[in-house]
Amino acid sequence: MTAQVQALYDFTGDPGTTEMSIASGEILTLINTDIGEGWWEGRNAKGETGLFPAAYVRKLTPEELEHTSTAPTHAAPAVPRYDQAADDWGDQQYSAGDNNYHRTTSQEDGWEDDWDDETYSEIGPAQHKSHHNQHQPMPLPGMPINDVNHLDDGSSNYGSSAGTVRRNKFAPSSKVTGESYLLGTLNVEVPDHDKIYIVQNEEGYVWSPLTHPYSVTVASPKKESKFKGIKSYIAYQLTPSFNNIQVSRRYKHFDWLHERLQEKFTLIPIPPLPDKQISGRYDEQLIERRRVQLQEFVDWMCRHPVLSKCEVWQHFLTCTDEKRWKAGKRQAERDPLLSLNYCISLVVPEKALLQTQVDGITEQCHTFVASMDTSVKSVVNMCITQTKRFQGPYKMDCQKVGEALYSLGNALSLDEGTVVSTSKLTSAIKMTGGAYIEIGRMYDEQPKYDWEPLGDKFHLYKGIVGSFPDVLANHKGAVQKKRECERLTAEHKMEVAQLNEVLRRTDVISYALLAEVNHFKAERTTDLKATMQKFLRQQITFYKKIVEKLESTLQQYDE
Amino acid sequence: MTAQVQALYDFTGDPGTTEMSIASGEILTLINTDIGEGWWEGRNAKGETGLFPAAYVRKLTPEELEHTSTAPTHAAPAVPRYDQAADDWGDQQYSAGDNNYHRTTSQEDGWEDDWDDETYSEIGPAQHKSHHNQHQPMPLPGMPINDVNHLDDGSSNYGSSAGTVRRNKFAPSSKVTGESYLLGTLNVEVPDHDKIYIVQNEEGYVWSPLTHPYSVTVASPKKESKFKGIKSYIAYQLTPSFNNIQVSRRYKHFDWLHERLQEKFTLIPIPPLPDKQISGRYDEQLIERRRVQLQEFVDWMCRHPVLSKCEVWQHFLTCTDEKRWKAGKRQAERDPLLSLNYCISLVVPEKALLQTQVDGITEQCHTFVASMDTSVKSVVNMCITQTKRFQGPYKMDCQKVGEALYSLGNALSLDEGTVVSTSKLTSAIKMTGGAYIEIGRMYDEQPKYDWEPLGDKFHLYKGIVGSFPDVLANHKGAVQKKRECERLTAEHKMEVAQLNEVLRRTDVISYALLAEVNHFKAERTTDLKATMQKFLRQQITFYKKIVEKLESTLQQYDE
Repeated sequence: MTAQVQALYDFTGDPGTTEMSIASGEILTLINTDIGEGWWEGRNAKGETGLFPAAYVRKLTPEELEHTSTAPTHAAPAVPRYDQAADDWGDQQYSAGDNNYHRTTSQEDGWEDDWDDETYSEIGPAQHKSHHNQHQPMPLPGMPINDVNHLDDGSSNYGSSAGTVRRNKFAPSSKVTGESYLLGTLNVEVPDHDKIYIVQNEEGYVWSPLTHPYSVTVASPKKESKFKGIKSYIAYQLTPSFNNIQVSRRYKHFDWLHERLQEKFTLIPIPPLPDKQISGRYDEQLIERRRVQLQEFVDWMCRHPVLSKCEVWQHFLTCTDEKRWKAGKRQAERDPLLSLNYCISLVVPEKALLQTQVDGITEQCHTFVASMDTSVKSVVNMCITQTKRFQGPYKMDCQKVGEALYSLGNALSLDEGTVVSTSKLTSAIKMTGGAYIEIGRMYDEQPKYDWEPLGDKFHLYKGIVGSFPDVLANHKGAVQKKRECERLTAEHKMEVAQLNEVLRRTDVISYALLAEVNHFKAERTTDLKATMQKFLRQQITFYKKIVEKLESTLQQYDE
Repeated sequence: MTAQVQALYDFTGDPGTTEMSIASGEILTLINTDIGEGWWEGRNAKGETGLFPAAYVRKLTPEELEHTSTAPTHAAPAVPRYDQAADDWGDQQYSAGDNNYHRTTSQEDGWEDDWDDETYSEIGPAQHKSHHNQHQPMPLPGMPINDVNHLDDGSSNYGSSAGTVRRNKFAPSSKVTGESYLLGTLNVEVPDHDKIYIVQNEEGYVWSPLTHPYSVTVASPKKESKFKGIKSYIAYQLTPSFNNIQVSRRYKHFDWLHERLQEKFTLIPIPPLPDKQISGRYDEQLIERRRVQLQEFVDWMCRHPVLSKCEVWQHFLTCTDEKRWKAGKRQAERDPLLSLNYCISLVVPEKALLQTQVDGITEQCHTFVASMDTSVKSVVNMCITQTKRFQGPYKMDCQKVGEALYSLGNALSLDEGTVVSTSKLTSAIKMTGGAYIEIGRMYDEQPKYDWEPLGDKFHLYKGIVGSFPDVLANHKGAVQKKRECERLTAEHKMEVAQLNEVLRRTDVISYALLAEVNHFKAERTTDLKATMQKFLRQQITFYKKIVEKLESTLQQYDE
């Protein structure tokens, strides 16, 4: 392949590497597009060769080559490069800039290049759909690490936060798809087995409970490789309880699934995937934490009466065949029942809802979610802080205590003499020093038993709570549409029959919201109780271990 | 009294107070010398009146008044004001600059002006002795607080360290007094009841054990006052077990005692008094810690076979009468048996000591003491650090955890509904938050049970270990003198009989050192064991309390 490309943005190659700097507007001759990880190799006008991010350039047609001087140039950071990349979806690697980023920061680790790898190459090109503008801008190469998502992110989840909301999913598409349902123009026949029921129990309106509950385990990930080992990646082994057949899924598959779920269920918060962890250690412990967070995602999915039954999830959990995978994938991407249109699958009680009652509940939910959002974030941050404290100053303080006592023991041993009580004391003091050094190690170890799992759990809640404002806004949009229709009918611009259909369908949407609000309440009540119990038990075990350590040390003095 | 004084140094009065700035050389008319705390009131040439430190001026004789222009002036901080003040001992308050310092930093607290108050005024003027040059320079007004002794002081105890050694006690006097004993020119008849025996037991040569052991309690200090309440100070109540009669002693009495002990016992490390604590809080807790450190001093004194019996200590412990106090005080200050001369009181085994053996022991002691000095200081610093950690970050971290959980409970209570399990969870989470806030309080409280007592104990050891190099040097001086005499005898410049007396007396000095080395070893073996046990028990209690707190919190979730 020898084609020419034009640089869209400036790119500064890392000195001392095979990277090459390119300037926006510059024409380059392609040498190799088979580098992988979003990199291409090219030659500039001076004859220099090197690598640059594929997403930073666009291929030129022979016609264009004649007037390259008029081709537009861009200042890289200000331009949503992602959209540009999306246009070239079919023939170039997606999010190459992102890949480049990872390549330069953690090249040695096959994990990272996989973490946000959205090339989808081995399962065929992704559909070029109209929702591509929902994507967040991805970090550009050369962006400082701290500007990118990181765990400490204290920014708001609401609206345009780059930290946790992966995209503004209701921007234009939901309104459109919602309207067709709401106005009754969408009339799809939903097969009975796909129908979802909302029923009333003592807690209010709820999703009809799961008839066949199941669980899925996410096993410790394995490093797999392809292209004869050139590219390695982490794959998770998922085993559903209903068939006990293991499937292997990479992060990108989770990511693809997550997008489908977010498109489809705009009244149901989708549990979050693990945060991108760009800085930090890429060790076993970090990989394990990602697994735990994926397990949290999977658990929430399994326990959800609607999500657990949906087709794309089932496909994700069960498909082991590459061809069937692709087919299912295409089908999911063409799903007509996205966003509010999904509500056509719902079967709700006959009773019409009182708008004031619905308003009251959504109002309370809004207040609750706003307060919860703050709390949940502060718990997440607190867990991160405590982990750092335990592994940093607490550990070091203990070790300093240990070292001071140990060196005291050493000093005393210089003048021990032959008196037994003296040498006994010396060794007891040394052992006390050793005990504190050991307690320091225990502090280092401890967070993985208490603070980290607690943080992982609240990562989940942070994602769910952070999605609620969108859910509420989506519902509110439907209610506003309904009011508009009421006005139109009052002005005789809409027929009463059609209004009644709108009213009925708005009620379906409200029923869905109420069911989800109640689901979240019931779910968190059980879940948080277990979470807090587990956390406290681990804390108790920890302090008991310190007591035991000190008690056995104390005995050294008694003998 | 209307006299005129000349300012010796510049003094800048604190603006907005009754203080007045004076310039070196300036002539002032005295208005009032009865202000107290080292302050005089005067009027300057401009007619302004105000207070200035008495030590900053000198009284002028009528003759002098005629040629004031030729009187010398000084730059205050560079001049050893202390010596100057000492010359005026009889008619002006001592260390007025020091008093001034405290006055401006902690005027509200009667304690501090007493802490280093060396006026000795109410027990008559101190003797103008030749050892006044042994005093450390006192801080001058305006010196930064941090330049003065502080607890964190990491400087060496050896030699000229200002941090812990109160004076260089062996500078000129000990050599002189030592020589008269060593050369046999000192021949005092020591009454039998004042004789101190050194005996041999399985641990080596030791001080003959105490036949009548006793203890002394230092009770919580009281704030007392004199001059109709103008001057208030802290007095400690000491109660010896042998007579159960309480005596009241101020810090300055302890300080005076300490000087006498250091003069007299140059082969015995004198336990340290509490460090000056110039910066920091003057609250109950600090006063209590000083009491604890004085108790440590007193305990060590009581347990020492030589110190516990000495006259000045007995006088200090028992004298309740002002006249007898002054008489005993004068007698102690005229004690002829200071430094090595004290050794004339000692009765040692007949056996001559092998110099090589003595050298071996002193060598080992030297190595031990050097290593111990480092360790003991690091334990002291560690205790201070741990106290700060417990009361600062540890407490705050716990409280942040508590607050995060409590606010989570609050958020959840906004969407509690009527479901019992939900409201139960909410209150359990709030209680968990409360428990961590309480644990934070426990961290704040804890150091007074473990780190501070441990630190107080090691303050004692720091002082004793820090005195050992002087003790060893003093012994070494005697050994060198002995060698000199051996050489003189070899050169026929000294008679054999006199040399034999020198050898015998050098042996007495060596016996004293060996006894003291063994006393320290035995003492610390018992004492450190008890100290470590007490410390560990307190630590265990603390962590058990955390466990209990968390366990009762956990139960909230179970019900």
